[in-house]
Amino acid sequence: MQEQLVKISEKMFECQRVCNECFDACLKEDHVQMMAECIRLDRECADICAFASTAITRESALSTDLIALCATICQACGKECEKHEHDHCQRCAKVCLECAELCRSYA
Amino acid sequence: MQEQLVKISEKMFECQRVCNECFDACLKEDHVQMMAECIRLDRECADICAFASTAITRESALSTDLIALCATICQACGKECEKHEHDHCQRCAKVCLECAELCRSYA
Amino acid sequence: MQEQLVKISEKMFECQRVCNECFDACLKEDHVQMMAECIRLDRECADICAFASTAITRESALSTDLIALCATICQACGKECEKHEHDHCQRCAKVCLECAELCRSYA
Amino acid sequence: MQEQLVKISEKMFECQRVCNECFDACLKEDHVQMMAECIRLDRECADICAFASTAITRESALSTDLIALCATICQACGKECEKHEHDHCQRCAKVCLECAELCRSYA
Repeated sequence: MQEQLVKISEKMFECQRVCNECFDACLKEDHVQMMAECIRLDRECADICAFASTAITRESALSTDLIALCATICQACGKECEKHEHDHCQRCAKVCLECAELCRSYA
Repeated sequence: MQEQLVKISEKMFECQRVCNECFDACLKEDHVQMMAECIRLDRECADICAFASTAITRESALSTDLIALCATICQACGKECEKHEHDHCQRCAKVCLECAELCRSYA
Repeated sequence: MQEQLVKISEKMFECQRVCNECFDACLKEDHVQMMAECIRLDRECADICAFASTAITRESALSTDLIALCATICQACGKECEKHEHDHCQRCAKVCLECAELCRSYA
Repeated sequence: MQEQLVKISEKMFECQRVCNECFDACLKEDHVQMMAECIRLDRECADICAFASTAITRESALSTDLIALCATICQACGKECEKHEHDHCQRCAKVCLECAELCRSYA
């Protein structure tokens, strides 16, 4: 497997983890209402990152397309998480935006 | 593929759909706070049903174990959804409990 | 959920099933060597169809992109399966090509 | 997230990667026929490890059960891969058996 693809796959896996941790933590917050869009994007981002990180490791013919989809969703999720002060949101925002950048640099 | 397994796989797929529809609708409700546990279980149930419904179709060695896990989560999700009056929750509860029963009848 | 998306999601689920059945059957054939490309595409097609069929049911922002990816892979898998006389390949080819057409008609 | 669960999740992700790399490489070997069982187990192991590694990160209620399923399949896949001299099989065997042991130590 190409070195850059290994890095992208590992970053996607880190990204799905922080998104899932943020998803879980948001559902325990006092003001779930305010976090609805964050919860939705956390799942969306976690699911496509998990799928893509795996597909890449089997040399999927869809790798390039999936990396492009991740770039879009990671960017959207990072921007939404950035708005909230919770530690889990800020941590998630940071990794999402790093992942988005790494994915764009591949395209 | 064995006839009963086809039925279970199809029911699981229906179950993941109503769970995802309920997940999506819960996040749009006025009182998201009250729906937090429902949202969490909807995703849990949708994810394991989606995975198991697929694994069964490739004659996975894990089929029986996965069916047992679905029985547990579908039951829990059905019981939680039953508590809420929203149409999407009632519809989800019905299918989850049917799926749980079908899975238990296989074990 | 929009009626056409329900149909696409259900067709994708049928498609992942016939692909997985074909994958499983190809690995039991006397001449696995000849089936290598079919096995690879069966998994690729099953995995993206399974993911997309599920994503659609939660009103994913990626639905349209995922449907387009499925159209491409279903077409490729259908064309490969068509070359082989095994019943499982012919059945898989038929459903893959139907699914590809349905996905294209959505775009 | 508990430290031990982070380690297990990361090991599962490494395991799904070597399994997918082995799956891909086996399909390119001269004697695919001999690799049929390896190919089947590689996919089985990759798929359950990918699913479980992700589920753990959202504090899934199924984490313990999924870790137990991984222990079983990783052991089976490791034992099958051990029989073949290809580098990708030996590498896969090593990681699968490490992952199996880590999963068993959690139970």
